[in-house]
Amino acid sequence: MLQEKTPIVSQAVIRRLPIYLRYLQQLHLDEVDTVSSQEMGQDLDINPAQIRKDLAYFGEFGRKGIGYSVPYLIEKIRQILKLDRSLPVALVGAGHLGIALSNYSRLRQAELAIAAIFDKDPQKIGTKIAELVVEPIDRLESRVRELGIRIGIVAVPAAEAQAVVDRMVGAGILGILNFAPTTLRVPGEVHIRYSDVTSELQALAYYVE
Amino acid sequence: MLQEKTPIVSQAVIRRLPIYLRYLQQLHLDEVDTVSSQEMGQDLDINPAQIRKDLAYFGEFGRKGIGYSVPYLIEKIRQILKLDRSLPVALVGAGHLGIALSNYSRLRQAELAIAAIFDKDPQKIGTKIAELVVEPIDRLESRVRELGIRIGIVAVPAAEAQAVVDRMVGAGILGILNFAPTTLRVPGEVHIRYSDVTSELQALAYYVE
Repeated sequence: MLQEKTPIVSQAVIRRLPIYLRYLQQLHLDEVDTVSSQEMGQDLDINPAQIRKDLAYFGEFGRKGIGYSVPYLIEKIRQILKLDRSLPVALVGAGHLGIALSNYSRLRQAELAIAAIFDKDPQKIGTKIAELVVEPIDRLESRVRELGIRIGIVAVPAAEAQAVVDRMVGAGILGILNFAPTTLRVPGEVHIRYSDVTSELQALAYYVE
Repeated sequence: MLQEKTPIVSQAVIRRLPIYLRYLQQLHLDEVDTVSSQEMGQDLDINPAQIRKDLAYFGEFGRKGIGYSVPYLIEKIRQILKLDRSLPVALVGAGHLGIALSNYSRLRQAELAIAAIFDKDPQKIGTKIAELVVEPIDRLESRVRELGIRIGIVAVPAAEAQAVVDRMVGAGILGILNFAPTTLRVPGEVHIRYSDVTSELQALAYYVE
């Protein structure tokens, strides 16, 4: 495959963009029109120079002495993250976590919502979760193609996660959010993120004496 | 209250320590004894200078030209994060998410496990989740004191989250992991972290063309 000539931005930068976005959207709700990297840095506990550098990868969005226009920067970050189009998500695993994620997803975001739910358990197939009918896992590949899905969520037990991920990759999914407490193998072109409650709690432990 | 004279380490540093820990524990399982900050940086996609700086806040753990001893660094990070003692956790919310978290927590970590589950729903109170009986929310304060709990997990709907957090803070909880999709107010001495599936998916969206 030919390498494209776009600059390679580190994953750490990409991980911070949604944090900036959520913060800016809150400012927008509070009717704040302009924000400096200093203010952003203080509120988010991130070095302002880091914020300026992160955003500069993608263009010249701020103005010296004035700062960033909040609505403009929201629009730009949404474009960078491709949130200006609809990105349907496939969820595998209709257990307690899957149900919680489905309810949450439908509620929170129109453009990045769970569009199909799969399970292998005949007792779960055909049940309704957040207005979606749970489909058999064997339909994963055809539905992913049909719906143009590129993002998958893994909410199955650890022992079943690798097989699910292999099927997702085979179906053409390029981004995976994994909730199973295990490390998974994916080809280089597929991005995987781990949602890890253990790490979150461990970071909190530091602060409790 | 008197300010202690320990150096103030930024939250960003503390957030990276569990990532280092999980990585080192995997190396340990793979029987790797020594690792350099270069190798760590490459595997974790974090600048090696950042890793050295993060660890140097807490002491001189590595040796020039040799790197870090894996078991020694595991022990040190566990000490820094206070994972060398037992830290019971209170969970409020026995819905689908709460059940998923309880099952996960009991499975994964002995020293940082959910020790009590609370809900206000009479239908849930008295039911058993992961060997724990769901208790009425009115017992939160007394049980937190009794069990010496300092960490709480919020798994209730957004509209109820602030009231739960207020009760947790009143009961003496100092670290809160919030799953409700809303921003919450806590006093300065309390640390709150947000588990945000939306941000995780948004960061993935960048990679799927």
